[in-house]
Amino acid sequence: MTRLIDALLSPKSIVIVGASADFSKLNGISLRALIDKQYAGAIHPVNPKYSEIAGIKCYPTVEDVPGPVDLAIVAVPQNAVLESIHALGRKKVAAAIIFSSGFAEVGADGIRRQAEIAAAAITVGMRLLGPNCLGVVNAYERVMASFAQLALGDTPGGPFALVTQSGALGSAIIGVAKKRGLHFGYFVATGNECDVGFVEVMEEVIRDPRIKVGAGFIESVRDGPGLVRLASAALSNGRPLVLCKLGRTPAGAKAVASHTGSLAGSDRVFDGICRQYGIVRARNDEQLLDFVSAFVNCPLPEGRRLGILTRSGGAGALMADRASEVGLEMAVLTEGTCERLKSILPEFGSFQNPVDVTGMGMFNPGMIGDAFQMVLDDPHVDVGIIWMGSTREVDFMVEVFLDLKRKARKPFVIAWVGVSDSAMQALAAGNVAVFRGSEPAVDAVAALTAYAQMQRHWVADRLLREVAAPPDLGLPAMDGPVPALVACQILARWGIHIAPMSLAATADQAVSIAAAVGPPVALKIESPDIPHKTEAKGVTLNLHGSEAIRRAFADIISHAHAYSAHARIDGVVVQKMMSGDVELVVGLTNDAVFGAVIMVGLGGILVEVMAEVAIRRAPVTEAEAARMLHELRGHAILDGVRGKPAVDKRALVRCIANVSRFGAAAGDRLVALDLNPVLLSSQSVVAVDVLLVLKNP
Amino acid sequence: MTRLIDALLSPKSIVIVGASADFSKLNGISLRALIDKQYAGAIHPVNPKYSEIAGIKCYPTVEDVPGPVDLAIVAVPQNAVLESIHALGRKKVAAAIIFSSGFAEVGADGIRRQAEIAAAAITVGMRLLGPNCLGVVNAYERVMASFAQLALGDTPGGPFALVTQSGALGSAIIGVAKKRGLHFGYFVATGNECDVGFVEVMEEVIRDPRIKVGAGFIESVRDGPGLVRLASAALSNGRPLVLCKLGRTPAGAKAVASHTGSLAGSDRVFDGICRQYGIVRARNDEQLLDFVSAFVNCPLPEGRRLGILTRSGGAGALMADRASEVGLEMAVLTEGTCERLKSILPEFGSFQNPVDVTGMGMFNPGMIGDAFQMVLDDPHVDVGIIWMGSTREVDFMVEVFLDLKRKARKPFVIAWVGVSDSAMQALAAGNVAVFRGSEPAVDAVAALTAYAQMQRHWVADRLLREVAAPPDLGLPAMDGPVPALVACQILARWGIHIAPMSLAATADQAVSIAAAVGPPVALKIESPDIPHKTEAKGVTLNLHGSEAIRRAFADIISHAHAYSAHARIDGVVVQKMMSGDVELVVGLTNDAVFGAVIMVGLGGILVEVMAEVAIRRAPVTEAEAARMLHELRGHAILDGVRGKPAVDKRALVRCIANVSRFGAAAGDRLVALDLNPVLLSSQSVVAVDVLLVLKNP
Repeated sequence: MTRLIDALLSPKSIVIVGASADFSKLNGISLRALIDKQYAGAIHPVNPKYSEIAGIKCYPTVEDVPGPVDLAIVAVPQNAVLESIHALGRKKVAAAIIFSSGFAEVGADGIRRQAEIAAAAITVGMRLLGPNCLGVVNAYERVMASFAQLALGDTPGGPFALVTQSGALGSAIIGVAKKRGLHFGYFVATGNECDVGFVEVMEEVIRDPRIKVGAGFIESVRDGPGLVRLASAALSNGRPLVLCKLGRTPAGAKAVASHTGSLAGSDRVFDGICRQYGIVRARNDEQLLDFVSAFVNCPLPEGRRLGILTRSGGAGALMADRASEVGLEMAVLTEGTCERLKSILPEFGSFQNPVDVTGMGMFNPGMIGDAFQMVLDDPHVDVGIIWMGSTREVDFMVEVFLDLKRKARKPFVIAWVGVSDSAMQALAAGNVAVFRGSEPAVDAVAALTAYAQMQRHWVADRLLREVAAPPDLGLPAMDGPVPALVACQILARWGIHIAPMSLAATADQAVSIAAAVGPPVALKIESPDIPHKTEAKGVTLNLHGSEAIRRAFADIISHAHAYSAHARIDGVVVQKMMSGDVELVVGLTNDAVFGAVIMVGLGGILVEVMAEVAIRRAPVTEAEAARMLHELRGHAILDGVRGKPAVDKRALVRCIANVSRFGAAAGDRLVALDLNPVLLSSQSVVAVDVLLVLKNP
Repeated sequence: MTRLIDALLSPKSIVIVGASADFSKLNGISLRALIDKQYAGAIHPVNPKYSEIAGIKCYPTVEDVPGPVDLAIVAVPQNAVLESIHALGRKKVAAAIIFSSGFAEVGADGIRRQAEIAAAAITVGMRLLGPNCLGVVNAYERVMASFAQLALGDTPGGPFALVTQSGALGSAIIGVAKKRGLHFGYFVATGNECDVGFVEVMEEVIRDPRIKVGAGFIESVRDGPGLVRLASAALSNGRPLVLCKLGRTPAGAKAVASHTGSLAGSDRVFDGICRQYGIVRARNDEQLLDFVSAFVNCPLPEGRRLGILTRSGGAGALMADRASEVGLEMAVLTEGTCERLKSILPEFGSFQNPVDVTGMGMFNPGMIGDAFQMVLDDPHVDVGIIWMGSTREVDFMVEVFLDLKRKARKPFVIAWVGVSDSAMQALAAGNVAVFRGSEPAVDAVAALTAYAQMQRHWVADRLLREVAAPPDLGLPAMDGPVPALVACQILARWGIHIAPMSLAATADQAVSIAAAVGPPVALKIESPDIPHKTEAKGVTLNLHGSEAIRRAFADIISHAHAYSAHARIDGVVVQKMMSGDVELVVGLTNDAVFGAVIMVGLGGILVEVMAEVAIRRAPVTEAEAARMLHELRGHAILDGVRGKPAVDKRALVRCIANVSRFGAAAGDRLVALDLNPVLLSSQSVVAVDVLLVLKNP
């Protein structure tokens, strides 16, 4: 892999197939940029229409180009792409970037054409980026293999990489980054990804020691395990991944499908993966950039206690509001800090967090730096924000902030309403992160603290993850819904407890089982053809006495026949009714992208309507299971409300971890597992209903 | 009122008490700005230290100033303010703006000093703005009565007013507005509001026909009924109010309290008021400005169907995502539109919404305008967004957008990533709203559509509101918790049904009542000293048979004695157990700011933990009650889930409206009403438990 991907990202020589002498055109921009930026390798335009372009020799065909070629830029009409790939193959070119559109994004014909070029590339042993892509810019080596405008501007080579499935969105935001003085090292637009994909490129670029942060726009995760591998490695190596996923709602997913021909995948699963593997998720393009700026410029905070210095009490309140919405804590300053602040602030200032220097900060701007130093030095403060409004003293304030940065041993950022581009650039040059207002500043600090915490969890869980790895216990060769009693046996081996049940073939058997376990009991139809028992009126709860049991048995059998005349009926399960203080649902599904994923949600009909679940890829550690529970709105109920005791959380997280280990072990055999409800009390964690569906390998 | 407030906002003559010849100082800026901007009225600096400042005669005292004076700017140290007010009173000055700090915001001493100056102003018949405020700028009449930087820059007088309790935040955002070519007509910072407050100023400025939108930052609503009056009038007159409330979380409210010495009030109640009276709520300063820009530049959309034209498929997906999150609908374009689009777009474009011109839009920018015209003309589209990234053709695109605006009969906005200030200003001059990215553009469109809908509801509900006005039915003179049976009688007169109950003094009576109503029954302690019955173990449910009832009766009485030895015990209420498919809680409280407010939430322990309620000021119409229900997450349960029938929504909204009318009628007599649970089925709406607490007038 590496040689070929090297050829794509750091080629020593480039051919441009279909190069144009008109530098304003799609097939001219890249050549102009390579020349302007003085790319150090060889540049070979290929086009039978020209003998030279801008003083560089132009060849009629690829085969006429002398010497070895690492990378080809293919900028020809769609119907000439396949032929170009064959020609490049004959020349033994290592990699090609296909700018051309008209492939998978246009429907069936395009999908076929795309498959053809992908197959051709495999045949000739060449890697492909695209088609339908904006290409690559490696700012360090001045590889301008892109028709994006950004290739033409100043590209000094900065500390982040942008890998994007949406080229236009990526290139637009690079323009904004530049205004802020934030420069990229790599820009790679992967287009339709017929070969090289997002994960492979990102893995490669964040291996470059010059890259501190990997940022990306994702429309469709094609390689789920790859993304997990990428994120795990990035988290272990302390390289933050900041991703913005497009198509997080059905409306957005539909838009993604219509313009790329690919599926956005389940957003909830993606979100669970982000939480689990430390991916920082940005809500939109601008937030992506904000987060990149924070990670590039700030060390990670040791905790989530925020100290604020403001010139506006209102802005202080706005930041305190936002901080509490995004999980930060307002630091309580020590008395010593308050005293020191009193010695320099006006008497009508605020000496508590948020510290307010008031409008006097306009007339004595030096006070802002001095006061913030005191805030940041407070042992209760992990991370700081300074709020600024318009000022005549821009240069002075920039110096104050740069000076604070030089002295600071804790992370801090600036929220500067109305900041000028030049001030942003001067601050960026000094590694100070500055944001256009209070909310983006607080959100960026929250991203820093959340990432720091995910990283701490990741490290702390390292050994636990090894323990969580599932053994190979084997599964019966079955296809479809597994009989409840068999499912109970299977799950028992994984330490998952289901309320005891027995199968009754007759009403008499049901009565005698009920007598043995004691009332009340539940009766449930057992049939491989009736997975949804309630729907078929196949469940009766809370039965007392033999008469009721006999009647229920008969009813259930007759309902089953009515529901499905040809259903195979194995009998009726008799189960002692259990009770619990809280209901939970725990389930597994086999996600098309990420494989076995575990879901946990609070139970009960209303919560189902609200569809509140926490999701992770299986397996999870018990610590991760605890974090899943904490993520649920209403999780306070687990700690006991209305005088009820707390549930047995230790047993609960063990149960969730066990279910997840089963899911990971079942792998492709798994279709779904549904434990609903799982009843919780201070004494026990027991699933009442189980639906396990397997498929043959 | 009007004359005095005129003196404050449009004075014909101004004295500056404590004027400085140093124009960079707090007490110099205003004078410099008045001179620079050629304020047309008389300017009289007052300061014994000078005989003239910048060629203008300076007087030793206020009484030395010749002629009548409308407005005084007081820029003296805190301890000289009171004296100044007396002097201004002797001069019969109509209004004064107190810049000076050191009043309510510094604690007890300051509160006392503030009360003194407020009292002095009343005595001399003068209105006060402030203290601790940035003052007033009336850009139309060039009244620069502020020490904010914005008074010094260009202030051409635009279509919105900013009234702000946070001066620094307001003045900072005005700076950003200016960069965007968005100009204000009035800027009023009200500071500590010892006299003139937010509501009064806003009512006044939006009466000015030059003002299209009133925007504001609120830290503390001091005059709840006033805000309701203001918002109602603004909604009736089609003047959008865009407000950002600081202190929406406990952490933010604490920050507000520490810097202003005032309370932020319940954010949930404020939010309900906004929904009820059509106030557009902005989450932060930047969003406030975005919304102002949308309202100033766009007509209101007739529906919520959004049409998007993009040059980036990824950006299209991002906008579709956001649109669905904020309640917009992606328009389904007609076939005719799609065909027309096909005739001008590249074949690999997208002809469905979001319409994607692809990167070809870079090379043929004229296509963007043509294609968007087709989208906006589609009869299924109510409002449009065009997305742009970086381009070499800035001026050309500005012309395209201005041209679209001239032709458009529907609202549209531009999302332009990396837009330059000059392009923004050119577009603003042509009344085109432009935003820095996709999310702010979609959010602004959502604000437009939400406001348009609130206004339609407001108009449609007009007659219903009159019907909803509560009659005067009178309430018993009581103080404290009202006995359950009395509460039932009172509420029955308002059409609120409580499950029938009877009071039993003895166990025998309880048994005979139970026999009359039929099993099962509930027994509940009745005592004015035990409002929370469950806590006192004063409730037993689901009782069958006389033995169980006798035992429960005895237990309840003994628990009550144990709970409170001196509690007066009126007996035990016997109530037939009711059932329902869904539980609701309906309540009233007497909010300190807004008076009687009604709350509706889904019931059950889990939902209580999640604390999900809809809130409105009482009374509400049945239509408003329906909107409250719709606001609840999980409201789908009312329509019937898991095979249950829908509840009787007509009876439910009538019940909510009736409760609200009772609340409005009870007025100050009300402490709280709690109907929990209210049981809903397809047949009935009945409250089971009632707690009504009144107080004497």
